[in-house]
Amino acid sequence: MIGIALMGAGRMARVHANAIRAAGAKLVTVYDVVETAAKSLASNSSAAVATSMEEALHHPEVNAVLVVTSSNTHVDCIIQAVKAGKAVMCEKPLAPNLADAQRCIEVLGAQARNVFLAFNRRFDPGHAALKKAIDTGEIGILEQLTITSRDPVPPPLDYIPNSGGLFRDMMIHDFDMARWILAEEPVSIYSRGSCLVDPEIGKLGDIDTACVTMVTLSGKQALILNSRRAVYGYDQRIEAFGSAGMVISDNPRATAVQRYSKAGFGAPDRLFTFYMDRYGESYRREIETFLGGVAVGAPPPVNAIDGLRTAYLAEAAGASLRLGRAIELKNTCEVTWNG
Amino acid sequence: MIGIALMGAGRMARVHANAIRAAGAKLVTVYDVVETAAKSLASNSSAAVATSMEEALHHPEVNAVLVVTSSNTHVDCIIQAVKAGKAVMCEKPLAPNLADAQRCIEVLGAQARNVFLAFNRRFDPGHAALKKAIDTGEIGILEQLTITSRDPVPPPLDYIPNSGGLFRDMMIHDFDMARWILAEEPVSIYSRGSCLVDPEIGKLGDIDTACVTMVTLSGKQALILNSRRAVYGYDQRIEAFGSAGMVISDNPRATAVQRYSKAGFGAPDRLFTFYMDRYGESYRREIETFLGGVAVGAPPPVNAIDGLRTAYLAEAAGASLRLGRAIELKNTCEVTWNG
Amino acid sequence: MIGIALMGAGRMARVHANAIRAAGAKLVTVYDVVETAAKSLASNSSAAVATSMEEALHHPEVNAVLVVTSSNTHVDCIIQAVKAGKAVMCEKPLAPNLADAQRCIEVLGAQARNVFLAFNRRFDPGHAALKKAIDTGEIGILEQLTITSRDPVPPPLDYIPNSGGLFRDMMIHDFDMARWILAEEPVSIYSRGSCLVDPEIGKLGDIDTACVTMVTLSGKQALILNSRRAVYGYDQRIEAFGSAGMVISDNPRATAVQRYSKAGFGAPDRLFTFYMDRYGESYRREIETFLGGVAVGAPPPVNAIDGLRTAYLAEAAGASLRLGRAIELKNTCEVTWNG
Amino acid sequence: MIGIALMGAGRMARVHANAIRAAGAKLVTVYDVVETAAKSLASNSSAAVATSMEEALHHPEVNAVLVVTSSNTHVDCIIQAVKAGKAVMCEKPLAPNLADAQRCIEVLGAQARNVFLAFNRRFDPGHAALKKAIDTGEIGILEQLTITSRDPVPPPLDYIPNSGGLFRDMMIHDFDMARWILAEEPVSIYSRGSCLVDPEIGKLGDIDTACVTMVTLSGKQALILNSRRAVYGYDQRIEAFGSAGMVISDNPRATAVQRYSKAGFGAPDRLFTFYMDRYGESYRREIETFLGGVAVGAPPPVNAIDGLRTAYLAEAAGASLRLGRAIELKNTCEVTWNG
Repeated sequence: MIGIALMGAGRMARVHANAIRAAGAKLVTVYDVVETAAKSLASNSSAAVATSMEEALHHPEVNAVLVVTSSNTHVDCIIQAVKAGKAVMCEKPLAPNLADAQRCIEVLGAQARNVFLAFNRRFDPGHAALKKAIDTGEIGILEQLTITSRDPVPPPLDYIPNSGGLFRDMMIHDFDMARWILAEEPVSIYSRGSCLVDPEIGKLGDIDTACVTMVTLSGKQALILNSRRAVYGYDQRIEAFGSAGMVISDNPRATAVQRYSKAGFGAPDRLFTFYMDRYGESYRREIETFLGGVAVGAPPPVNAIDGLRTAYLAEAAGASLRLGRAIELKNTCEVTWNG
Repeated sequence: MIGIALMGAGRMARVHANAIRAAGAKLVTVYDVVETAAKSLASNSSAAVATSMEEALHHPEVNAVLVVTSSNTHVDCIIQAVKAGKAVMCEKPLAPNLADAQRCIEVLGAQARNVFLAFNRRFDPGHAALKKAIDTGEIGILEQLTITSRDPVPPPLDYIPNSGGLFRDMMIHDFDMARWILAEEPVSIYSRGSCLVDPEIGKLGDIDTACVTMVTLSGKQALILNSRRAVYGYDQRIEAFGSAGMVISDNPRATAVQRYSKAGFGAPDRLFTFYMDRYGESYRREIETFLGGVAVGAPPPVNAIDGLRTAYLAEAAGASLRLGRAIELKNTCEVTWNG
Repeated sequence: MIGIALMGAGRMARVHANAIRAAGAKLVTVYDVVETAAKSLASNSSAAVATSMEEALHHPEVNAVLVVTSSNTHVDCIIQAVKAGKAVMCEKPLAPNLADAQRCIEVLGAQARNVFLAFNRRFDPGHAALKKAIDTGEIGILEQLTITSRDPVPPPLDYIPNSGGLFRDMMIHDFDMARWILAEEPVSIYSRGSCLVDPEIGKLGDIDTACVTMVTLSGKQALILNSRRAVYGYDQRIEAFGSAGMVISDNPRATAVQRYSKAGFGAPDRLFTFYMDRYGESYRREIETFLGGVAVGAPPPVNAIDGLRTAYLAEAAGASLRLGRAIELKNTCEVTWNG
Repeated sequence: MIGIALMGAGRMARVHANAIRAAGAKLVTVYDVVETAAKSLASNSSAAVATSMEEALHHPEVNAVLVVTSSNTHVDCIIQAVKAGKAVMCEKPLAPNLADAQRCIEVLGAQARNVFLAFNRRFDPGHAALKKAIDTGEIGILEQLTITSRDPVPPPLDYIPNSGGLFRDMMIHDFDMARWILAEEPVSIYSRGSCLVDPEIGKLGDIDTACVTMVTLSGKQALILNSRRAVYGYDQRIEAFGSAGMVISDNPRATAVQRYSKAGFGAPDRLFTFYMDRYGESYRREIETFLGGVAVGAPPPVNAIDGLRTAYLAEAAGASLRLGRAIELKNTCEVTWNG
């Protein structure tokens, strides 16, 4: 049985703890800088509470580590866990900024490909079905990709200053979706951002409404739209157009109920507004994929290199916005811009 | 913690065993006439294998009993479990025929309302949302109800002779849906049946394609369509029309993916063909509802009386088909027909 | 150029007059018992106003006659027009009752097949596409047919007494749809009716909510649901289920616009509430089909025999409701019931 | 009655001629540089064939002129018609390039607002319903606009060299849609283009796959996607997202028929591949709007200024593609770029 050390005891740590239990793995120990949080999470399981990261990592029953700490500690935690010979899954993002992500990859070397980076949307049943349809040739050669990604409500204002900004915090998911589906690295990026949802977000130096254009060497075009607020719920759709057709991963709904009335004519059921309703299944499949890989020693389908490359795109998107021009992208993730 | 004795170790017993585990209850003991089946089911839990129904019922840790044996033993099992003071949930149907169902209700007396009869479709998220919409007045007064219910494939031929026939075996679910949604007992029933799917089913004396019309005292009309085979998968929809609108519980789908091609123009994703994909969620919610009721001592939302009344409708539908005429229904479930 | 005499100058006559103009035929003369109505209709065309049916029929430029008079004069008008050697299209129903329809067919003899009976729904693009899908084998062998047919609002109360009742006036369309799609005559019919929409309709001896079950010799089942009032607009759908699939002709909508809001999640656009929005295209195609047939001397796709057979089904449905039992149907349209 | 001179006798001229007839106006005279084309078009009406533009313009019965000549003669034709005191409707584009469009507007002066520029998509029922929903506040303040516009097949290769390129020829419609819906002029534009559909198009110096990002002063973002080929038919959708919701004008379909089979699960009916099926209704409404305006002397809802502004956007999009950078837009339509 796989024994797991959980680093972090916040909201996402709880999501993963539940998924671990459901997947039949054992939560061995929990560590968090806030010990009461670790205790609280451990209380409804037989997990031990570790007093340090090292203690958790070296627990004899632990063979896999889940890193769900705050972003700025991800890199150190990953490196230590890898050095301790453990299988590692790290919550996105890999690092709070590009420089840290690059350092992580350098230190890890060949091991970078063995670190599972938890971009959960790859495990969403709809998005995964879209990806599979493309991979099996259903739409011929992919030509245009449109990713719409809007959250129901903005995060609390006090979350904004340490979030890294919309590109690093929110669009990071869509950068990963784009790279995964394009199956080709973008060679240029152009971004625009506005503050339309809440002027307070703008005062904090961030944007809440953004769009990005990326192009690959072969001429594929990828567009991303983000908004921090969609009053009708999670609006996270992908549309892939190709030489032989199109496949759309539309928003899932609560049920297949339709309503007719004097003012409604077959209205489908509501979209989701709670992230666990929208993405719960993806978290379950993600953990199962991680544990399945650990069990047979297979490399993860999404790894720390993917974390580096999304960090690079987020950084470049920020530069494009600041500089008011398209940014040329390097396959080496080299920074070619100033300012 | 609620301790459960599972009577029966077949396919549906496994479904419930999984739902019990997921709901956090304890499977204490398993009994089946085929001891190897009981052992197999118990093997991946810490449950004991009982050598008799009595042993299982009187296990000191057991306070709730799930009856998932073959239909012809349901009544005796329920009666013994109730006498033993246990909370009981029984898989549908209550009994293999109307006479046995009536005997069960007579013996149980007032306790009949405390036996949870497992009509799982009441717990399907879509059907439950439709019911709620009606109960909250969204469609005004219900006037016409159309229940379409088609299975992906017919059961194996050797299942047919002991199935009790399509009305008792398959349409029993739809009779329960109709009564639940109408919130009023039908006063007449008219049925038609054909053998269109497989002539072998006809040789065994059964039908595979049926439709039923029921009317209530207030003039509400309910239609049920059944087929043993829909090549496109589970086709189990409910349509409720009323003075202020209509609500439809349509078929759920694998994902919200849509496909466009030279020959397809936004085709939605596939319907389900495996019953656990289609109804897994309903089984989970059913067990949770049962356990929740046991925990607080609340009566079940669907009980043995509902089992009797659906048995009566199935029996009357059979009579209508045989006699070629509409059958008047009595609130007492009295048989008014000959032959 | 085809020259047309229009018998009748009411609402449906105007619809046909417009369709005639759009189809490039010539409206030669108009007759109505109310001469001012004929004058009004003729005024925005160069058509003459006839002072008698005979005058209109024998106008030298007329080679086709459209009968859009009140139902009780259809038969005489058809017979005279056929005797005058004109091509004839008659608005549904063929006659106000079965006896008159039978008389019409007897008098017409072989000519009955040359009289175009205007069941416009056969020319509705959606219903016609469904029929074509079945005819080309898309769903294999048809097994179950469900026709839902609800009007937005009941007719004015003073229309009810002379309407012939719901089965003859409204469900007549659905009887024609059923026969057309089944491609096989029903051998039995069972009907139920309620007065749920407006008690005043009940006081006038009619019903406003009905359902009918018909079965064919080969065991195909056809269900019809009717209501005089659907608050959300025209609800006229057909669902054909067969051994290899299902095809549904769903309600058309104003546009393909979808709306999302706090309370709506992709609601499709409104259904139609005005009959010309819902059925305008079918009227245009109907006239084009009639004129096309006249031009090349081809027999109409729907004729007076169809008018007789739908009248028979309507009459039998009424008898079933009155007598509380299923009615056996004869291929000769013979009345087998008393009372 | 409005008498019309039709300038041009090609494919679009025929479309307008039919719409004129259906709208009850009179086609007085037709002029085309190819006289046989004019004769052919005039032959199935009572219209005269003019031997020169002047002759057509000064026909005494003519009070309105439709300019459907080749693009490079639009400006002269408009100017002459306006000088002749006629009401004018001109097919899009206003001019083959920005310089000619600017010259046209200068010469016309205040009259520019009286020239109806035929951007037919404004009259498409779906797009018009979307615009109305926005104008009535249904989605609050518009924030992001996504216009997807793909044609079923590329034009013939010999059409490409004189087309002006994708931005001027095809995306011109989408620029008009964007300006109309944004109700605010864009202040920047960034475009990308690829040749993915047919390398021959690339050899002719054009692109066949493009995307454009525009931003307005208030920060609204508008994205346009174009492809010359969508194998599934016309794919021309608009999606408007705002502070209180979203409205989508989806692709219309042939009928509301849905198909279920072993391989299809409720597939909607086909999209359109013939432009008159897709846009016929918009042409009818466009002519009716033009004639209605002429009748009451109302200014057109879309005029030559709109033609200038879309020409400016097309020109700037081309510059952005050539120069590899975003282009700042001036409200004066001034060219700020070199090369």
